[in-house]
Amino acid sequence: MATNQEHVNLLGATGSPFVCRVQIALKLKGIEYEFVEENLATKSEQLLKYNPVHKKVPVFVHNEKPISESLVILEYIDEVWKQNPILPSDPHQRALARFWSKFIDDKIVSTSFKSVFSLDEKEREKNIEEATEALHFLENELKDKYFGGEEFNFVDIAAVFVAFWVPLVQDITELQLFTAEKFPKLYNWSQEFLDHPVVKETLPPREPLFAFFKGRYESLLAASK
Amino acid sequence: MATNQEHVNLLGATGSPFVCRVQIALKLKGIEYEFVEENLATKSEQLLKYNPVHKKVPVFVHNEKPISESLVILEYIDEVWKQNPILPSDPHQRALARFWSKFIDDKIVSTSFKSVFSLDEKEREKNIEEATEALHFLENELKDKYFGGEEFNFVDIAAVFVAFWVPLVQDITELQLFTAEKFPKLYNWSQEFLDHPVVKETLPPREPLFAFFKGRYESLLAASK
Repeated sequence: MATNQEHVNLLGATGSPFVCRVQIALKLKGIEYEFVEENLATKSEQLLKYNPVHKKVPVFVHNEKPISESLVILEYIDEVWKQNPILPSDPHQRALARFWSKFIDDKIVSTSFKSVFSLDEKEREKNIEEATEALHFLENELKDKYFGGEEFNFVDIAAVFVAFWVPLVQDITELQLFTAEKFPKLYNWSQEFLDHPVVKETLPPREPLFAFFKGRYESLLAASK
Repeated sequence: MATNQEHVNLLGATGSPFVCRVQIALKLKGIEYEFVEENLATKSEQLLKYNPVHKKVPVFVHNEKPISESLVILEYIDEVWKQNPILPSDPHQRALARFWSKFIDDKIVSTSFKSVFSLDEKEREKNIEEATEALHFLENELKDKYFGGEEFNFVDIAAVFVAFWVPLVQDITELQLFTAEKFPKLYNWSQEFLDHPVVKETLPPREPLFAFFKGRYESLLAASK
């Protein structure tokens, strides 16, 4: 195990949901790593070298070998460090975990951000509708305490975006997208998940992040006038 | 092995690159299956039951258990049927295979279709530029005969879209997006790959598909006038 843990770096940015996914997995598995905070306004030489394609965080660097894309990194971590598995062992269950994680990225991430940050009324309404439909699918998929059952797994980690970031950005405009009334099971799950010691320790502090997004929203508004 | 092969159905549509990916993997592994042709204009009860979320093909059904999303299906097939592996065994190489397959879906599929089917000149130019940039990344990634080395693998299968569908749709408008001059390594790869017995037997016939896309393009044009 020690050799695997020798050179583990994570190029990230505090406040990124995709970076947070990787941090949750590393914490769950007890892997020590060095966090390299990237300033995304002035991308570092290292970031451009390790992720020349997307030039984005997270980049996970294990013994000098870089990997990008948060879900790809999660799979890698689960394959290399076997303790506390995050993907189920059954192939069909693994397929479902991959399906729902991809679903969150494809159908919830962009629509829920645009539900707040679209200044065009019609586009915002369309995104709210699509995000709501997607959250309903996710609500129906939740059968136990976590998506993973009694313990959280790959899908729960991917869905940290829903538990933490969606409530954060919707508060900027007092949007009622993801509420306990509309999504009782998913809301309960989010409370349980955010309260899990591993997750709690890993989440970025809420207030500065809220201020950051609110600032971004206000400059958008100002620029549109 | 026999038990795994008992009830293998593929809900598909001839002419879909995503369905073709699954068919190549099944053929490579010698898995017998029943192909259920779906009419996407009138989606079947079975399709709606098995893929209520996206209502799209391919859906792979193994012993009554459905899986959607072509790359998720490929992973499943590779986990259940071990012969002729399509993902590398090394975790870092596996991560790269997943990264590049996702890259093809995120950066090439939609931009290359829109390079032909966008009627807005500015949007078309933007898509041609983005597709070209993405194809350059892919060209640079090709180090051997195949993306998988001496044998084709997961990335090659995902890239069937580039080998077969991109040339097909670009011919509709005589677009010079993917040519031997611009992408010599990728072009050679595409010829090798299309000529591989497994791939050759699996591809849909070119002419009716070309006629289908050309018809679609012409009705778009007509509708815009």
